[in-house]
Amino acid sequence: MKIDPSPRLSALQKRLRRKKYDALLVTEPYNRRYLSGYTAADHGIGETAGVLLIPATGMPCLLTDSRFVLQAEEEAAGFDVVLYPRGLAPLLKKMLPRLGIETLAFESEYMLHATAGRLAKVLGDCGVDFVATTGLIERMRVVKSEDEIALLKKSVLRNEQVFNLVYNTIEPGMSEREIALALELTMHELGAERPSFETIVAFGDNGAKPHAVPGDRLLVPGEIVLIDMGLVLDGYCSDMTRTFVAGKPDSTYRERLRVVRRAQLAGIHAICAGVSCRDVDLAARQVIDDAGYGKYFGHALGHGVGLAVHEDPRLSSRSRKKLQPGMVVTVEPGIYLPGWGGIRLENMVVVRKDGAEVLNEDTTGLNL
Amino acid sequence: MKIDPSPRLSALQKRLRRKKYDALLVTEPYNRRYLSGYTAADHGIGETAGVLLIPATGMPCLLTDSRFVLQAEEEAAGFDVVLYPRGLAPLLKKMLPRLGIETLAFESEYMLHATAGRLAKVLGDCGVDFVATTGLIERMRVVKSEDEIALLKKSVLRNEQVFNLVYNTIEPGMSEREIALALELTMHELGAERPSFETIVAFGDNGAKPHAVPGDRLLVPGEIVLIDMGLVLDGYCSDMTRTFVAGKPDSTYRERLRVVRRAQLAGIHAICAGVSCRDVDLAARQVIDDAGYGKYFGHALGHGVGLAVHEDPRLSSRSRKKLQPGMVVTVEPGIYLPGWGGIRLENMVVVRKDGAEVLNEDTTGLNL
Repeated sequence: MKIDPSPRLSALQKRLRRKKYDALLVTEPYNRRYLSGYTAADHGIGETAGVLLIPATGMPCLLTDSRFVLQAEEEAAGFDVVLYPRGLAPLLKKMLPRLGIETLAFESEYMLHATAGRLAKVLGDCGVDFVATTGLIERMRVVKSEDEIALLKKSVLRNEQVFNLVYNTIEPGMSEREIALALELTMHELGAERPSFETIVAFGDNGAKPHAVPGDRLLVPGEIVLIDMGLVLDGYCSDMTRTFVAGKPDSTYRERLRVVRRAQLAGIHAICAGVSCRDVDLAARQVIDDAGYGKYFGHALGHGVGLAVHEDPRLSSRSRKKLQPGMVVTVEPGIYLPGWGGIRLENMVVVRKDGAEVLNEDTTGLNL
Repeated sequence: MKIDPSPRLSALQKRLRRKKYDALLVTEPYNRRYLSGYTAADHGIGETAGVLLIPATGMPCLLTDSRFVLQAEEEAAGFDVVLYPRGLAPLLKKMLPRLGIETLAFESEYMLHATAGRLAKVLGDCGVDFVATTGLIERMRVVKSEDEIALLKKSVLRNEQVFNLVYNTIEPGMSEREIALALELTMHELGAERPSFETIVAFGDNGAKPHAVPGDRLLVPGEIVLIDMGLVLDGYCSDMTRTFVAGKPDSTYRERLRVVRRAQLAGIHAICAGVSCRDVDLAARQVIDDAGYGKYFGHALGHGVGLAVHEDPRLSSRSRKKLQPGMVVTVEPGIYLPGWGGIRLENMVVVRKDGAEVLNEDTTGLNL
């Protein structure tokens, strides 16, 4: 299923007119894909695969270089694809007066300080105001349509399928890296575009690092295994963490696992449109605090997921923002004890008017 | 082999004192690794794994969050690892006055416009000048030590080994994606940290996109195969392109291949310390122009390679910078004909006082 981006474009153009911007320069890659369907990946922020120029009225343009022109023309239907053989600044200098653009907004959250300075100077010289904005498109992306939720569900289920195929092959003697590679290979085999982030596989005390990097360590019977993985399918991300033991878990593990699972359920039950992000985080955190592990849960409870694997809203004790129906978030409490290991459980959840809808179906590590 | 970063730190601190900066905030991930040995990866520019605070004199600090603290302490010897549980700005506000830092430089080429604005405001409020700089560390990185060149050579040879293992298995009926995956899997098996960029495998007319994305297309006998691949080993990148035909090449292909190879040799022969980047690009471009394919070679001839796969210098017709001994660059002319396909040949080369030293040994597609 491909989602037609033209209603998003119209909504954005209306917004630009209301704000009296003649156009918006879209540099953020997920925003670019959201509005145009163009899927090319940037090579870091310094090396873009193209930017969108969205006028407040009229035909939008995709500005890129010769390496990407064929892909851009194939994918970005309804966009005028324009090349910048000598870079973006000279092209804008030529195009903007011709299009009557006197106020050009840019995405301050996705433009380097140095680049913004250079463009402001060049455009200022030809009478164009270069105005910083934040979150214009992100605010649209944060609430998902039912079509988007269907794609996110598909991504979650495909991710679980990958997990289960590899889970059934895990045995002592395998390395973290070997399992991570098997997961990523299986993602590709099952049609994922790519992993949505670098797959984490951590054994034993290595799991005490919430962002552990898989290494050559070999699995020993009785060790904890923590796997945090996600994939991109039709552009939409999944993100899931499972923790289990290679063999028979001891009572310490089972007790701590129960704490984390109870915290996760408390978080999920707190989720409902109108509730603040902070209150959801605190509902889960309270369970971990009460069990005496408060200082071993150092990160926020969750984050939004969509085209980006980490996006708004943040389920953090510092966010007073309110949840809205159609937001999709992870709920991922964890406890991390240096020298012992870590337990994290992560599911993805849709915020509904009357509560939370869990997208996951896999129950590995959840049965205590 | 691990390179001790402390001489680099001393050189940078000397530079900071000369420029009257009390400290530099290092946000660029390769610069961070170059100075500290800390290998964690950022999740895009919006989600850093930590920043360095390098005072003009005294002990450097690595500022990060709880997810990365164990890795930071393991890897960044000689650094004081400091946590920012509430974000970077509050920590800097607390630390800078205590360290007597009144002028803090930042990397304008690797800080978002919005972030720089927010930090400038917070720091300004406590009397700290927040000063944009560019290229302070990049200028050090551009010239490689013999130790770095040895690591780059190792990366190039490992990459060739991966290529050759997979090359010998390629046959009609395989998909682009299948070959790309086999290459990336073999990279991991042979000890690479990761691919240095998304591996390109393009068949037939798909090769006319210089940045083609591998798809489900199946290889047909007689088709052109273009593979552009690289890996990261001990932090250092390789980058190589090979083009060949699945079966017997026809005379058109052979003629065009010869043009590209002659252009590559012309570029390599033009390389020598003191020569401008522009002149090297033009030496290769002239060969392609003379053969009548000038308009089908739309990109620059090459780029620097080191910790980053794309770094300075750029071998571009627009760069008047002069090559220096110890620079390492790719030489990668190509011709791309929509509907027919593309041919690109890419080797890595060290700039020496008296000419070029080619790091590659593989000759696939080079024998005409």
